Amino acid sequence: MAERRKFDDILNAFKCGEIDEAEAGARILELFYEGREHFLLDMEREKRLGFPEIIYAEGKQTGDLLDIVARMVEAKGRALVASLTPDGEQVLTESFHGQRIRTAGRMMVIGTASAAEPLGTIGIITAGTSDIPFADECALLLEELGVTVLTAHDCGVAGIHRPLMSLQRMEGAQAFVAFAGMEGALPTVLASLTDLPVIAVPTPVGYGFGSKGEAALATMLQSCSPGVTVVNIGNSVGAAAAAVRILRAARTSAK
Amino acid sequence: MAERRKFDDILNAFKCGEIDEAEAGARILELFYEGREHFLLDMEREKRLGFPEIIYAEGKQTGDLLDIVARMVEAKGRALVASLTPDGEQVLTESFHGQRIRTAGRMMVIGTASAAEPLGTIGIITAGTSDIPFADECALLLEELGVTVLTAHDCGVAGIHRPLMSLQRMEGAQAFVAFAGMEGALPTVLASLTDLPVIAVPTPVGYGFGSKGEAALATMLQSCSPGVTVVNIGNSVGAAAAAVRILRAARTSAK
Amino acid sequence: MAERRKFDDILNAFKCGEIDEAEAGARILELFYEGREHFLLDMEREKRLGFPEIIYAEGKQTGDLLDIVARMVEAKGRALVASLTPDGEQVLTESFHGQRIRTAGRMMVIGTASAAEPLGTIGIITAGTSDIPFADECALLLEELGVTVLTAHDCGVAGIHRPLMSLQRMEGAQAFVAFAGMEGALPTVLASLTDLPVIAVPTPVGYGFGSKGEAALATMLQSCSPGVTVVNIGNSVGAAAAAVRILRAARTSAK
Amino acid sequence: MAERRKFDDILNAFKCGEIDEAEAGARILELFYEGREHFLLDMEREKRLGFPEIIYAEGKQTGDLLDIVARMVEAKGRALVASLTPDGEQVLTESFHGQRIRTAGRMMVIGTASAAEPLGTIGIITAGTSDIPFADECALLLEELGVTVLTAHDCGVAGIHRPLMSLQRMEGAQAFVAFAGMEGALPTVLASLTDLPVIAVPTPVGYGFGSKGEAALATMLQSCSPGVTVVNIGNSVGAAAAAVRILRAARTSAK
Amino acid sequence: MAERRKFDDILNAFKCGEIDEAEAGARILELFYEGREHFLLDMEREKRLGFPEIIYAEGKQTGDLLDIVARMVEAKGRALVASLTPDGEQVLTESFHGQRIRTAGRMMVIGTASAAEPLGTIGIITAGTSDIPFADECALLLEELGVTVLTAHDCGVAGIHRPLMSLQRMEGAQAFVAFAGMEGALPTVLASLTDLPVIAVPTPVGYGFGSKGEAALATMLQSCSPGVTVVNIGNSVGAAAAAVRILRAARTSAK
Amino acid sequence: MAERRKFDDILNAFKCGEIDEAEAGARILELFYEGREHFLLDMEREKRLGFPEIIYAEGKQTGDLLDIVARMVEAKGRALVASLTPDGEQVLTESFHGQRIRTAGRMMVIGTASAAEPLGTIGIITAGTSDIPFADECALLLEELGVTVLTAHDCGVAGIHRPLMSLQRMEGAQAFVAFAGMEGALPTVLASLTDLPVIAVPTPVGYGFGSKGEAALATMLQSCSPGVTVVNIGNSVGAAAAAVRILRAARTSAK
Amino acid sequence: MAERRKFDDILNAFKCGEIDEAEAGARILELFYEGREHFLLDMEREKRLGFPEIIYAEGKQTGDLLDIVARMVEAKGRALVASLTPDGEQVLTESFHGQRIRTAGRMMVIGTASAAEPLGTIGIITAGTSDIPFADECALLLEELGVTVLTAHDCGVAGIHRPLMSLQRMEGAQAFVAFAGMEGALPTVLASLTDLPVIAVPTPVGYGFGSKGEAALATMLQSCSPGVTVVNIGNSVGAAAAAVRILRAARTSAK
Amino acid sequence: MAERRKFDDILNAFKCGEIDEAEAGARILELFYEGREHFLLDMEREKRLGFPEIIYAEGKQTGDLLDIVARMVEAKGRALVASLTPDGEQVLTESFHGQRIRTAGRMMVIGTASAAEPLGTIGIITAGTSDIPFADECALLLEELGVTVLTAHDCGVAGIHRPLMSLQRMEGAQAFVAFAGMEGALPTVLASLTDLPVIAVPTPVGYGFGSKGEAALATMLQSCSPGVTVVNIGNSVGAAAAAVRILRAARTSAK
Repeated sequence: MAERRKFDDILNAFKCGEIDEAEAGARILELFYEGREHFLLDMEREKRLGFPEIIYAEGKQTGDLLDIVARMVEAKGRALVASLTPDGEQVLTESFHGQRIRTAGRMMVIGTASAAEPLGTIGIITAGTSDIPFADECALLLEELGVTVLTAHDCGVAGIHRPLMSLQRMEGAQAFVAFAGMEGALPTVLASLTDLPVIAVPTPVGYGFGSKGEAALATMLQSCSPGVTVVNIGNSVGAAAAAVRILRAARTSAK
Repeated sequence: MAERRKFDDILNAFKCGEIDEAEAGARILELFYEGREHFLLDMEREKRLGFPEIIYAEGKQTGDLLDIVARMVEAKGRALVASLTPDGEQVLTESFHGQRIRTAGRMMVIGTASAAEPLGTIGIITAGTSDIPFADECALLLEELGVTVLTAHDCGVAGIHRPLMSLQRMEGAQAFVAFAGMEGALPTVLASLTDLPVIAVPTPVGYGFGSKGEAALATMLQSCSPGVTVVNIGNSVGAAAAAVRILRAARTSAK
Repeated sequence: MAERRKFDDILNAFKCGEIDEAEAGARILELFYEGREHFLLDMEREKRLGFPEIIYAEGKQTGDLLDIVARMVEAKGRALVASLTPDGEQVLTESFHGQRIRTAGRMMVIGTASAAEPLGTIGIITAGTSDIPFADECALLLEELGVTVLTAHDCGVAGIHRPLMSLQRMEGAQAFVAFAGMEGALPTVLASLTDLPVIAVPTPVGYGFGSKGEAALATMLQSCSPGVTVVNIGNSVGAAAAAVRILRAARTSAK
Repeated sequence: MAERRKFDDILNAFKCGEIDEAEAGARILELFYEGREHFLLDMEREKRLGFPEIIYAEGKQTGDLLDIVARMVEAKGRALVASLTPDGEQVLTESFHGQRIRTAGRMMVIGTASAAEPLGTIGIITAGTSDIPFADECALLLEELGVTVLTAHDCGVAGIHRPLMSLQRMEGAQAFVAFAGMEGALPTVLASLTDLPVIAVPTPVGYGFGSKGEAALATMLQSCSPGVTVVNIGNSVGAAAAAVRILRAARTSAK
Repeated sequence: MAERRKFDDILNAFKCGEIDEAEAGARILELFYEGREHFLLDMEREKRLGFPEIIYAEGKQTGDLLDIVARMVEAKGRALVASLTPDGEQVLTESFHGQRIRTAGRMMVIGTASAAEPLGTIGIITAGTSDIPFADECALLLEELGVTVLTAHDCGVAGIHRPLMSLQRMEGAQAFVAFAGMEGALPTVLASLTDLPVIAVPTPVGYGFGSKGEAALATMLQSCSPGVTVVNIGNSVGAAAAAVRILRAARTSAK
Repeated sequence: MAERRKFDDILNAFKCGEIDEAEAGARILELFYEGREHFLLDMEREKRLGFPEIIYAEGKQTGDLLDIVARMVEAKGRALVASLTPDGEQVLTESFHGQRIRTAGRMMVIGTASAAEPLGTIGIITAGTSDIPFADECALLLEELGVTVLTAHDCGVAGIHRPLMSLQRMEGAQAFVAFAGMEGALPTVLASLTDLPVIAVPTPVGYGFGSKGEAALATMLQSCSPGVTVVNIGNSVGAAAAAVRILRAARTSAK
Repeated sequence: MAERRKFDDILNAFKCGEIDEAEAGARILELFYEGREHFLLDMEREKRLGFPEIIYAEGKQTGDLLDIVARMVEAKGRALVASLTPDGEQVLTESFHGQRIRTAGRMMVIGTASAAEPLGTIGIITAGTSDIPFADECALLLEELGVTVLTAHDCGVAGIHRPLMSLQRMEGAQAFVAFAGMEGALPTVLASLTDLPVIAVPTPVGYGFGSKGEAALATMLQSCSPGVTVVNIGNSVGAAAAAVRILRAARTSAK
Repeated sequence: MAERRKFDDILNAFKCGEIDEAEAGARILELFYEGREHFLLDMEREKRLGFPEIIYAEGKQTGDLLDIVARMVEAKGRALVASLTPDGEQVLTESFHGQRIRTAGRMMVIGTASAAEPLGTIGIITAGTSDIPFADECALLLEELGVTVLTAHDCGVAGIHRPLMSLQRMEGAQAFVAFAGMEGALPTVLASLTDLPVIAVPTPVGYGFGSKGEAALATMLQSCSPGVTVVNIGNSVGAAAAAVRILRAARTSAK
């Protein structure tokens, strides 16, 4: 194939002294990727990392956002967009009205990818109703990637029976993603009841001291239940990616 | 009595114009208290507030500390000292070896007060063994003031049955003081299981982000169980005083 | 009753080995509560905790909010909603215009509960006029629960006579809730003048360093008057719940 | 068995009205655990969570520490102690000199457990030599639990070839634990090169602004590589526990 | 010249005792500058510092802004305005529609200065597309001052080949300005690959803990690659000024 | 007079045992002030403190604000209002259009007080044009109280001659108020050039790390010129009050 | 005198073109001061600023400290040293045992200056006994500069009569310096009772959240009594210098 | 040479399909470096970056430190060690007593490198005597690398003539490194007087709020003089490296 030939060319150029070591190394790396002027769409990332590139809408100008989404849909059949403003959501909906569109929280999926091979099962649990938009983002992303998602909402520790009951609905889950704002105690209690991975997502829910998720973040990092891991406040994309990594580890082991 | 006479004198001096309003008000206030050069022992405080003055040892020089304690023992029969260093503890133990001495955590009681009238019953619950020294300070102080103390230790949420079990040992308690470091979730869970007052005390236990009790403090202030109130990190004296105020409110109501 | 029968069924199923211990425990817990898909209305909470569930409007979508309120009004006769935006307030007012509606600050009460048994008397004191909306929320909630409320406004320490005078209007109060922003010194001064509980509520009033209630929160936690307890910034609901817990402790003692 | 009989007794007592629902639930929970006065050794935790209880030495008094360790060694054959001071380490070494003792960083293993079933393989990678004591704690704990550990040290991004080379030594690893202080960029780079789980551990290495691991923590939470999860600063125990949870998920799936 | 004469007058006035030392020193300093009532346009600054005065629009009232810009255009031919709001941008565009206008990010150049002598070459590299507006401000300013600018965008470490490739496009650059938000690792990696100056600019891009550029700032200050220097979050003007200072040092040395 | 009689009545009531000490003291204090339901206008404050009550508009509802202003204008002839929103400014302007109105920054003076006795002279110096609105508030307030104000604007240390020159315009000033945002170095430099009081006011001007006046506040508190005192960020009212206190001290001494 | 001649020489050198403007300005400035290699003893500072140079011992090596103190004693008759460690105190005491030595807190005065002209009277008030070492430093420094000092200790707001009584002992004071740790409310209350300057000094007294003086600093900056000014935590030297500036303003006015 | 042969081998192995692309790239990178078990001495770093590897002693165990230093001395003739404790300094001095040893602050140079080619001239300026140890570290490192160093100490802005005079001693400097603690204003003033690079180093000097260099860091990042760049608090090594990068840029340009 073309890439192979280019690679051989580089090696030969190096062998006969036309280029030095530094240049050889750089050219080889360059081969693996497609470089563009204003954005390097990391087309191979999904193959390499088992997780597609997410387009963060925040801070991007409308024209740039439309270009990137269009290019991604064309190349992959599907674009995944996060941190959309209401304006951005409207513009994308109008521009891609012929495409299949799914939304959750501030996330949008445009287009259709080829059917994903089933990856496994993840349980998503929220402490309160205000955490649901963040959980929905995570669920949408996981489903797009071929993950079966189980959910239990409004299971915070203010009623201590609720976390216990939530786990009973989670038959078959290989790992849990727990969303909580306020005092953020839910993942700690869940992790004391299961031996499976618990990914804790602090949400920007609360008021006064420690609001915007800071108290929840601190609680989760200080958890007295060993083995809770944490992603940043409101980072539902990161939580989904971490869950996929765990499922991938499980599949590797299963072979 | 002497105070009455002095009070009348002030009023008369004011009436005949010898002194103006400001001076009259100030002299009247002065009557109620005993003022000294370097420290104003607030001798009437116990009568007024139902809580004796606590001598904070931290930052005081040894000579001053001995003077104040001696004076308090002489006047009241008993001195309550907090935030003692090991050195301070040794000096006081030697200086007052003839007196009854009780210690807990960094607190020391020297001497004996007249038997306190029974005030009521308080339950003290800790999340981990590292919280016990703080709880012991609180218990010692409450007992000295005539409060019956019930205790349950090592009842953190990492084993969710433990907070439930701790409350079962608390028969008769009128309010609870809950000590927790790390993620500090214990008072939230307790408050979801009882309708009585829960005073939360964050302890400086933990590591990394949110250590020294800061995560626990944030958790307690953000508690999703309404009605938890909080004192400062490691403030076992303040928690005891708050518990006494609640018992006092209960006695007032009971009349 | 039905619950009793189900409970026996579980026990029997366990006895004859149909279900194991874990399942038996879980089913028993499940009996006590009513579980729903998107929110678990904790119907028994008021009976258990002596404090009704408060619906936090913040972060909830309008449809969800209307559903929850409607369901609560239907089940209990009355819904208590906090942290309302002006939009949310308008929507609720229109949707429930046939109901009795009371508002204070960002709180709204919709509907009527059966007459509450008198619980006792609470004194509410504010440092400045900007603290009044927070105090009004607390007062409204307490009154709905059958508490007699005494109030004194604008009693901050900038005029040192004002805290003294405020307490004189508080005849019969069993505990005090003190609201203050800025430097937040009011609860400290009040607690030096009374032996009853003082619940301190920092308000998000102030500017520059320590604004949004942070200076007031720090002051209250560092209070040199022992026995002040604190709730989070602007947490008038938590303060009301704490006051109710104290009154409940008083009633228990009085029996 | 005895537990079974007691359980039936409770159920019967409930059936005939001797005890109410609350008491029945509580007694049932109590059955599953062994309660003690000053500490509740959670003997069943290992069975339930696949992870033994770790004894945190910090804040415990020497007598208490020796008691707990002795009891754990007696019951389980092995005690795992973390956050030891040099003094504590010496006392334990002397008191248990007849036992097998292994140390790493501030952790100590005393005694021998029955041979653990092989759990899987974890790769441990450090950014600098100062991170090694934390990594060693993690490795010791994993090895004690039957995990095969691969290590690569001093692989920080200051030489960009080093993270790439570290992954080449990690054949067979199912997940990675990456330790980094200073700017903490290592886990981000690793996660861009693998599709397996990356658990990031900030270490308290660095100086000035963002020292004590705070810059590293922020970097790891803000990682531009999706799917990195984080534990608290220096929390090597938590990282080991999270790794074990992932291996457990893999084993479950493999069945 | 006039200034010389005034200077002699001052010296003479001092010699004959009409004025004292303090006044003499002050008057001499005053000679070098032009003072105005409401703003002191530092007309000589460009000559002294090799960098023109930048007009910060933020916090200035529209009238004042128009006055200052008009005066600067009249005196220098060109005004450089930073931190413009959309409103300010519109007002300036309308008021100076006859002038040449260039914009980038929140910066605007109005008018034309005499052709700048070529200063040298600077490479500008961004981690993500959201950093581009900040980089554009820097590039615009450098170009106006006679600097050749090379750019490479979207070169963050999530694809580790991208920073390597970005440097390959930077032939001839004498120093680099690197813009990054989120975890901010780009400048660290660049500085490990070049021996030229790297000026790091944290951008306010990111979410949750460490957002608004704080994580990036901490990362850059804690960089494990020695020799990275940092300017404040979003300070593209400062970065341009620092780059010009380096080029100026190079020119001085080259003579 | 009436107050005298009431005072005697209280004393007599106390003498004959009708009231106890506590009540006597409280009633006496009450005499000196005028109490109202929702706000205690501290009518005697100006006489006592030499500084009128400032009405903070922030957080007050429009109706309350109008009432308080109207009452103050009626009682004193003049109301001083701070922290006005544009809406509040418009409402007051319309409601009091028959009155003399002066505005500066977010402050407004409504009505006319009797001519103030000259108090002395204060110098006001700003670092940049963005600080002027804060300085204008301070100047307006001082002028209303009979103080002569000297001003010098845009005198920051970026041109080191500017602070020197600013002091030359300050002939006769008895103290200085210096406003600075950004790095806040101006008061330090001023205090190294004069032996008179320098009151430093950090302003919320700047960007990125240490913005909103926090860097300026830290700089001023850490000043290497001894004797700089500081008020809170943007607190022009507090700075004016502090300046008046100094002038009052000077007048007292002059007698 | 010699300086005058050198000054003329510079001016003449400038006039005949031997040196340029920049050099002339610099040489003139240089005349006024005495420059040394490692430290510029600012010998004229006292004359210029009415406040002697304070030698900060912290961070200085013993040899340097002894040199600087010896040189200062030789030149001025007296050295003022602050932030001494116990070791430094001992070394200085031994090295200068022939000199008059006075100590307070961490401050030491070595030697004797010519009798200072009386400057005026300052009142020093502390909230608690732990604040006294800081107040003593301030008092010692003021006395050395010829200020009459009045003191009142242990006057915190926990007994509200104490701040009132403290002011009664302050007859003749022209300004107040108030020291407080913990919640730091004392200066606010004092400033509500006097129209003279109140300089607030937060002390590093307290525990938990807001300890090390941070709560007190925030309180003082947020004070609801207008006109309180603040120096940094524990900055008794700065408070003394500020007090001297006020007395100097008063003397200027009195002339 | 051997490396060349190995490189060809890799290429050939890749060509004939024995290894895939990923392995080929990794092996090529591996060639350029020498890998060890516990630390990868980056032997080529000096050639690549023009700056030798600095050994950070902090957190390393004595044995490891001695090994690394010995190996570095053997390979390069000279080892550069930073952040030494007094103990570490003593151990190294004893272990390498036969070698040339130079120390400054917490830095030590052991052994001799071949004479460095002259790189250029750097000016080092400190604000106070407490900053000198940090400046000395920077100077020692620069001198070892062949840089001519000019120094001016104790030039802070408390005497505004001092920064001006310091620059007069800096004839020939191509860039400046400015060290300041406390309020950190020195680099801002220097940058307003020169058009050359100013690298600002905050030092951990100061007390109370903003101590440990935080106020100085904030000041330097907020500097109103454009073009100041900043390294972390106390980072004298980073400042030296940044200065070397600038000199290297200058040399490149000069060619």
